[in-house]
Amino acid sequence: MTLQQLIDTYLPAIEIELQQVVNLAKDTHYAGLYEMIAYHMGWEGQGAGPNARGKRIRPLLALLSTASAGGEWGNALPAAAAVELVHNFSLIHDDIEDNSPLRRGRPTVWKLWGIAQAINTGDTMFTLAHLAVMRLKETTTPAIALRATHLLQQACLHLTQGQYLDIAYENKTDMAIEDYWPMVSGKTGALLAACTELGALVAGADDHTLTAYRRFGRDLGLAFQSLDDYLGIWGDAEQTGKSVASDLVERKKSLPVLYGLGQKGAFTERWLQGGITAQEVPEVASLLEAEGGRAYTQKEAQRLTQQALAALEAANPRGEAGQALSELAHTLLKREV
Amino acid sequence: MTLQQLIDTYLPAIEIELQQVVNLAKDTHYAGLYEMIAYHMGWEGQGAGPNARGKRIRPLLALLSTASAGGEWGNALPAAAAVELVHNFSLIHDDIEDNSPLRRGRPTVWKLWGIAQAINTGDTMFTLAHLAVMRLKETTTPAIALRATHLLQQACLHLTQGQYLDIAYENKTDMAIEDYWPMVSGKTGALLAACTELGALVAGADDHTLTAYRRFGRDLGLAFQSLDDYLGIWGDAEQTGKSVASDLVERKKSLPVLYGLGQKGAFTERWLQGGITAQEVPEVASLLEAEGGRAYTQKEAQRLTQQALAALEAANPRGEAGQALSELAHTLLKREV
Repeated sequence: MTLQQLIDTYLPAIEIELQQVVNLAKDTHYAGLYEMIAYHMGWEGQGAGPNARGKRIRPLLALLSTASAGGEWGNALPAAAAVELVHNFSLIHDDIEDNSPLRRGRPTVWKLWGIAQAINTGDTMFTLAHLAVMRLKETTTPAIALRATHLLQQACLHLTQGQYLDIAYENKTDMAIEDYWPMVSGKTGALLAACTELGALVAGADDHTLTAYRRFGRDLGLAFQSLDDYLGIWGDAEQTGKSVASDLVERKKSLPVLYGLGQKGAFTERWLQGGITAQEVPEVASLLEAEGGRAYTQKEAQRLTQQALAALEAANPRGEAGQALSELAHTLLKREV
Repeated sequence: MTLQQLIDTYLPAIEIELQQVVNLAKDTHYAGLYEMIAYHMGWEGQGAGPNARGKRIRPLLALLSTASAGGEWGNALPAAAAVELVHNFSLIHDDIEDNSPLRRGRPTVWKLWGIAQAINTGDTMFTLAHLAVMRLKETTTPAIALRATHLLQQACLHLTQGQYLDIAYENKTDMAIEDYWPMVSGKTGALLAACTELGALVAGADDHTLTAYRRFGRDLGLAFQSLDDYLGIWGDAEQTGKSVASDLVERKKSLPVLYGLGQKGAFTERWLQGGITAQEVPEVASLLEAEGGRAYTQKEAQRLTQQALAALEAANPRGEAGQALSELAHTLLKREV
């Protein structure tokens, strides 16, 4: 089967598993709680449907990792549901923390139901994620279930540590490139690393292979993020699907911006003056490019892409699923910089 | 040893275990994150000390349950730390959800560091709670650790479900007594039930005993809450340590209030007119009493107290710790209604 055929096979099973877990919170008393979760997951409410669900990249990575490490992908469904629930819990809380009114083109949970319910809905989904991963008891061994639970919780800790830095940076003025990696490793790398490692763990992979899968997930995350940061300033709108340079307007502490702030030159001076309008973007992007921010980010993105692909090779993914995993990685990283 | 001697033995060990778990999140990059947790836990910052820590009732219940079920209390420390971390994570989020500026006489985390950091700090502590309970692997068996983890997560789910109802009730006008129990079972009963059941589980208790300990914890929580609700309107200030009838001013959906709203009489009419000032409290409390709210709450509190003590007897707690557990229950429930 091709990547697309595997995705078409996996996706409905992922949605069923997610539904089963979320149904643990369903009860006549808590219909409203279920409604908020189902809305956020893209199952119900205005605008529900595939576009509202995101690409489910994390569970797909988990299942492909299991299959390519020689296991049965179906056994990894509890882990796949868990990583997607962790991802979505963090999105609900991030949207409050960032004051974001929209997510995937729809009003965010806090916008519709208020901050109090949104915080609690995120907490519920976080709990459901932990309940989800424990369902591995049914599909694997207790030892694997326990190890997987611990692995996911470690990833959650890194996620919250990365998020702490992201929020803290809002008020920090003296920033530099060293501040970038701990934040992105936590916010993006940790959960993707958990996806691929959990997948291999369910397949019963040895420690050497587990390490290779974990590194692949982490490096894929870092490479993807640095690419995204590049395109957020120098990408074209068609490729990114969002208005170009919105990252500068949104004051995102992205890789090129942190590089630029480390130079303490004209870009830093302009940045510290405050908000950048859409009209000013080309000029500020030029300042950043002149100081080396564009070349640096391009080099880093390429380096990390190579590193991620080398890690994938080291993991030695097998069969059709291995091919598909490689294809998925190339797809995610193919965006030219 | 007496209850007080056991408390004096357990409390320092609980603080050490909590510190060890919280240290998992400590790192030079995340010093500020640790600072917020240590502040909330009452270890650091303005006003730190025993008064800022609360009574640590939940971990004490867990350790006394282990010892009274024939186990080594030290083996239950990971579970004790876990329940206290869950409790404190929920307090941080509750304070945001309720817009509360003070907690145990000190500014709340969100008041000092903002809503975004407070949400994320709560998430971090929630994760640490899960990492804490898994440390039972070291002190018990993998099977017990896995079961304990699952048990705690179920309690967390009930906690968030109860919290959902609490928030939802703010905008609900047609309320009655049936709305009370699902909320309080989740918000108060579930975690206390987990404390006593986890304690007995660590002691290797059989299913029959586990059920008895669980019921004891749950009923203790419900009895304590109904007592608290009674005293929140008809208690005297010296006994409660807070100004009397603040529950009416704060529009708390307590047991007597929900009973009163079910009568749809003069109390309901007054309640729906909006805010009750401190001056109006005696009059509104009289309305509620005239409609049976006081007698009903008193009867319920007494019934639940008897039920909790009967559940404790069924659990058959042994030795000095059993005596102490019984004494602790009587202390918590002794407040006359």
